[in-house]
Amino acid sequence: MRRVKSGAKIILFTILKYFFEKNELAVLADLATFAANLGIMSLLVIGSVAFDAIETPFGKTDKIIGGAATYISMASSYLCKPVNLVAVVGGDFPQEQIHQLNSMGVNSEGLQIKEDEKSFFWSGKYSNDMNSRDTLVTELNVLGTFDPIIPQRYQGCEYLMLGNLSPDVQIKVIERLEKRPKLIAMDTMNFWMDVAMDDLRKALTMIDVLIINDEEARQLSGEYSLKKASRIIRDMGPKYLIIKKGEHGALLFHEDKVFFAPALPLEEVFDPTGAGDTFAGGFIGYLAKLDQVDFEHMKRAIVYGSAMASFCVEKFGTERLVGLTNEEINDRLKEFVVLSSVELNLD
Amino acid sequence: MRRVKSGAKIILFTILKYFFEKNELAVLADLATFAANLGIMSLLVIGSVAFDAIETPFGKTDKIIGGAATYISMASSYLCKPVNLVAVVGGDFPQEQIHQLNSMGVNSEGLQIKEDEKSFFWSGKYSNDMNSRDTLVTELNVLGTFDPIIPQRYQGCEYLMLGNLSPDVQIKVIERLEKRPKLIAMDTMNFWMDVAMDDLRKALTMIDVLIINDEEARQLSGEYSLKKASRIIRDMGPKYLIIKKGEHGALLFHEDKVFFAPALPLEEVFDPTGAGDTFAGGFIGYLAKLDQVDFEHMKRAIVYGSAMASFCVEKFGTERLVGLTNEEINDRLKEFVVLSSVELNLD
Repeated sequence: MRRVKSGAKIILFTILKYFFEKNELAVLADLATFAANLGIMSLLVIGSVAFDAIETPFGKTDKIIGGAATYISMASSYLCKPVNLVAVVGGDFPQEQIHQLNSMGVNSEGLQIKEDEKSFFWSGKYSNDMNSRDTLVTELNVLGTFDPIIPQRYQGCEYLMLGNLSPDVQIKVIERLEKRPKLIAMDTMNFWMDVAMDDLRKALTMIDVLIINDEEARQLSGEYSLKKASRIIRDMGPKYLIIKKGEHGALLFHEDKVFFAPALPLEEVFDPTGAGDTFAGGFIGYLAKLDQVDFEHMKRAIVYGSAMASFCVEKFGTERLVGLTNEEINDRLKEFVVLSSVELNLD
Repeated sequence: MRRVKSGAKIILFTILKYFFEKNELAVLADLATFAANLGIMSLLVIGSVAFDAIETPFGKTDKIIGGAATYISMASSYLCKPVNLVAVVGGDFPQEQIHQLNSMGVNSEGLQIKEDEKSFFWSGKYSNDMNSRDTLVTELNVLGTFDPIIPQRYQGCEYLMLGNLSPDVQIKVIERLEKRPKLIAMDTMNFWMDVAMDDLRKALTMIDVLIINDEEARQLSGEYSLKKASRIIRDMGPKYLIIKKGEHGALLFHEDKVFFAPALPLEEVFDPTGAGDTFAGGFIGYLAKLDQVDFEHMKRAIVYGSAMASFCVEKFGTERLVGLTNEEINDRLKEFVVLSSVELNLD
């Protein structure tokens, strides 16, 4: 696939942005295909797009927009446009939310709308210290029978982020791509380890980067030590493993190398919902933007992911992820650099 | 107080080392006084010297040497010799353990030996994941009536590390120093917040650096957010606050600045006992060695503390802290630097 020079990219992005803003989706789709063929529109995101109802010590929401793919798409859209979304919602999903995503640079051609069904719904309540949460309601609805359809224009994508979903669906997505992406990253959760371990094992052999939290890494490997766990999990397939530790930062393992990025100490974590997905979005968005797949770029991508996640938790749901400025993001990144910079002058 | 040039320091240290190795403690004491008057023998450590009996998933010890001041002294001795120890033990404390400390550069003139009494004894058992521990036995013994006596030769010390003890004893130590040290760092624990909060509050007004863990910071401040907690605690007195988060690293707060140092991801934590004290020892030892008290040096000191702590947990008790080489320490420091190094090329 041909690569275009960065000047051409900038011009193309400007044109794309214009049509996004005008909401000219048909024109946009054609342009998207054109750009995809040039190999520069290459991020594909799959996962849930859903309703959440959240209760934290700071307040309570009605049904608001949520779902892994929503957070991933929004976060990555600040780094790489457009984001090609594959997901499913019911007829109850508000059109204006789809337009919101579109306006942020998310291509919703791959978003199936099942008019007679209901969207996935999750409701949860956080403990006072925000360190644990109880699930109050899980209604799978459309997600129970989700058959991921990849629009033809999405074919040729180079970066694929598989948000947390049944491993069976994650495998289908990979199998339905005509050409294997340059990088496949995947999230999963304990639930799938309990009920779909065979499928999960198969999925792990097909991906490059697994992004999970510490608890999940321990369950998947049967090892408490994250360093030992990281080797066992990478033996299952992924060359890169990211272990998220929430407020305690994230670890990246590859070959014999380890990188650690802290989480920013925040005044207040208002709502942690979606922070992990936002992290994944920032991570994959950065790699797709730079179009580089190596340890050094993954380190930077993790810092971008952490920065995006630090915004996410400041307000309910996706609220803080809408309308971020480049300056805000840059300032946050600088805070990360300052936070862990030290000069030791070793021999 | 006059400062000597670094060439003179090196010569003096070589002479001191010679007498340590010869076990010529009387000569050493005179030399120590001489050096102290020059302002270069300036680390004073106070805390418990004790027996521990430890059970972890990896094994079980009989009574072994432990106590906050033991770990602090050993760790700091790799950076700054001699370490002037103030503590109390009973007649049951083995002379060879004191010689062990002496051989590492720890001056035990301030170690009171109460022949007819027993040393402080603690026994604990760690959970399978090492994340919690139950105290099985606490016998205060000599520590119950500890009256800290500062030998005349220790007067003039510039760096003081107050290991975890009753705040009343910590205050006495400060009050018994003829000249206020350049830097006073202190550790404490939840227990004292419960039973001696008034004394603790007074102690906090007398120190520069408080070193506590996240749980203790939350209890002391009544705030869950560590960032908010850090402000409340610093309003109580200390200009610098270090919050240790165990396997999740450590945070340093000062004015509007924050620094985070990760803990090294280890294959196995064999025995966490004393890791926090070892961290404190590496921290204060580095500052005493460099004789610099500012945020940048404290950042580096925290990395040294983390490196020393990463050794401590690899074996039972103080075992791993004996006989470390400079090369081992340097290699560990380099691992820390690699672990969190990332270049972002921000504007």
